[in-house]
Amino acid sequence: MINKETKFLIVGLGLLGGSYAMGLKQEGYTVYGLARRQETIDYALEHNIIDQGQIEVDDFVSKADVILFGLYPTAMVKWIQKYKHLIKNHTLISDVSGVKTNIVDVIQEELNDRDIEFISCHPMAGKETSGIEYANTEMFKKANFIITPTEKNTEKAIEFCHDMAYTLHFNHIAILTIEQHDRMIAFLSQLCHVIAVSLMNTHDNSHLVEYTGDSFRDLTRIAQINENMWSELFLLNKDILLDEINQFIDSISHFRDALQSEDEDEMKRLFIQSTQRRKAFNKKDSK
Amino acid sequence: MINKETKFLIVGLGLLGGSYAMGLKQEGYTVYGLARRQETIDYALEHNIIDQGQIEVDDFVSKADVILFGLYPTAMVKWIQKYKHLIKNHTLISDVSGVKTNIVDVIQEELNDRDIEFISCHPMAGKETSGIEYANTEMFKKANFIITPTEKNTEKAIEFCHDMAYTLHFNHIAILTIEQHDRMIAFLSQLCHVIAVSLMNTHDNSHLVEYTGDSFRDLTRIAQINENMWSELFLLNKDILLDEINQFIDSISHFRDALQSEDEDEMKRLFIQSTQRRKAFNKKDSK
Repeated sequence: MINKETKFLIVGLGLLGGSYAMGLKQEGYTVYGLARRQETIDYALEHNIIDQGQIEVDDFVSKADVILFGLYPTAMVKWIQKYKHLIKNHTLISDVSGVKTNIVDVIQEELNDRDIEFISCHPMAGKETSGIEYANTEMFKKANFIITPTEKNTEKAIEFCHDMAYTLHFNHIAILTIEQHDRMIAFLSQLCHVIAVSLMNTHDNSHLVEYTGDSFRDLTRIAQINENMWSELFLLNKDILLDEINQFIDSISHFRDALQSEDEDEMKRLFIQSTQRRKAFNKKDSK
Repeated sequence: MINKETKFLIVGLGLLGGSYAMGLKQEGYTVYGLARRQETIDYALEHNIIDQGQIEVDDFVSKADVILFGLYPTAMVKWIQKYKHLIKNHTLISDVSGVKTNIVDVIQEELNDRDIEFISCHPMAGKETSGIEYANTEMFKKANFIITPTEKNTEKAIEFCHDMAYTLHFNHIAILTIEQHDRMIAFLSQLCHVIAVSLMNTHDNSHLVEYTGDSFRDLTRIAQINENMWSELFLLNKDILLDEINQFIDSISHFRDALQSEDEDEMKRLFIQSTQRRKAFNKKDSK
């Protein structure tokens, strides 16, 4: 289990990695940091976010009991392939990846010949900004923490992740399969981003800025998007996301057809159904 | 022009009609109210929203210099057809309709044989609630007020609407043609509602409530929708709205195709374009 002697190494001190480091150090754990740029290490040391840090990936890695990756998913896979020989036995490894398909199985396969356990997690926090300067632990307090264990994971590791999320004050901790997680993410997050981006790209709309109300602003806020991270996440989850996009296109095409044929009854039925379904999400709003 | 002797009659004391009445009476004008239910009149009198009110449409109508309709568009057309003989000459009439096509021309045609001017306006305020109990003048302060004059309107009437919107403390007053207005509404408001409704209707999603973050909540808030009002507004603006829906379906289908063919460059181009376009709307946010 998690205890105060546990030494954490955070690989990648971006927004999430930096926030993990900050939160764990605040709780009294020893936190090491690895980053690509010396300025990031300097910033983290100056702001008391880590205990020690460096940019060289050498035997520094073997000091950790737990390694948490704050890297993009494919960068993490490459890192593990390249440096796994530096990781000591019995180290627990986890991540922050927004998609699990094509990532978790690859890493667990990679570590098959080692006594190192990889258990995948998704802290659903922080999206609009990036960089350690924005690191904060407040964002965890209203966020979900999802653990996505496979048959290769131990109960002990699942419990460790649960304790860590609890320690970091996440609002809600859940366990999902990889398939459940990636389908949930495809619908609740990725499809929403596809919609927002596609709405902004429908046609030039700059002349409409002065008339914009809350509806359009709320729908398109997430159309401001990091193109590198999101294209990677979309491609990793391609099959499920395509299925969700196609189901949505079917849904809006059905509405379009009802309007085209002036089928007022069907339009009203669709409005009533959407209103009822959305009400379930309101209850959560007021929680 | 508007002056303190101007007597207003509000026909239909719902959220918008009630808020108009409240705001004009607060500014010292005489305000009469017509409603279908006596309870509405009683409420409006008790809460000092109107000076006088009744449910009978008789010569009460002839007391007004200005008549403002807070009715649904098609109900307003029918009202004017039925009761126009009760309106005295030189009365100015205006409305709050969210769509202008198939409404403004019909009413102006109807009044062609009378010395009564109809000038159409759209106060872009208040949507989630309805009923006089929710009437308030605060919502005007961050809202757009659009005047949509035709060639049949006088400069004097346009100026009157402008003064009235100013008196009611609207944030921004603009003049648009009917075509400009209905296209703007189709894209910024109606298409957003079609998207939100269609997203909620994509499939049963009730099991995902506990994982929902801000993205999905923001996109679907307006999926809670008054089926009677919105089906009427959509059908009135059918041709333009269909065009906007089809353009959006083209846009999201194009994104889907890029993902399907793993065209990462095109996906990134679309992300960058949406991010840049959305930034123009941020500036307005911080105004």
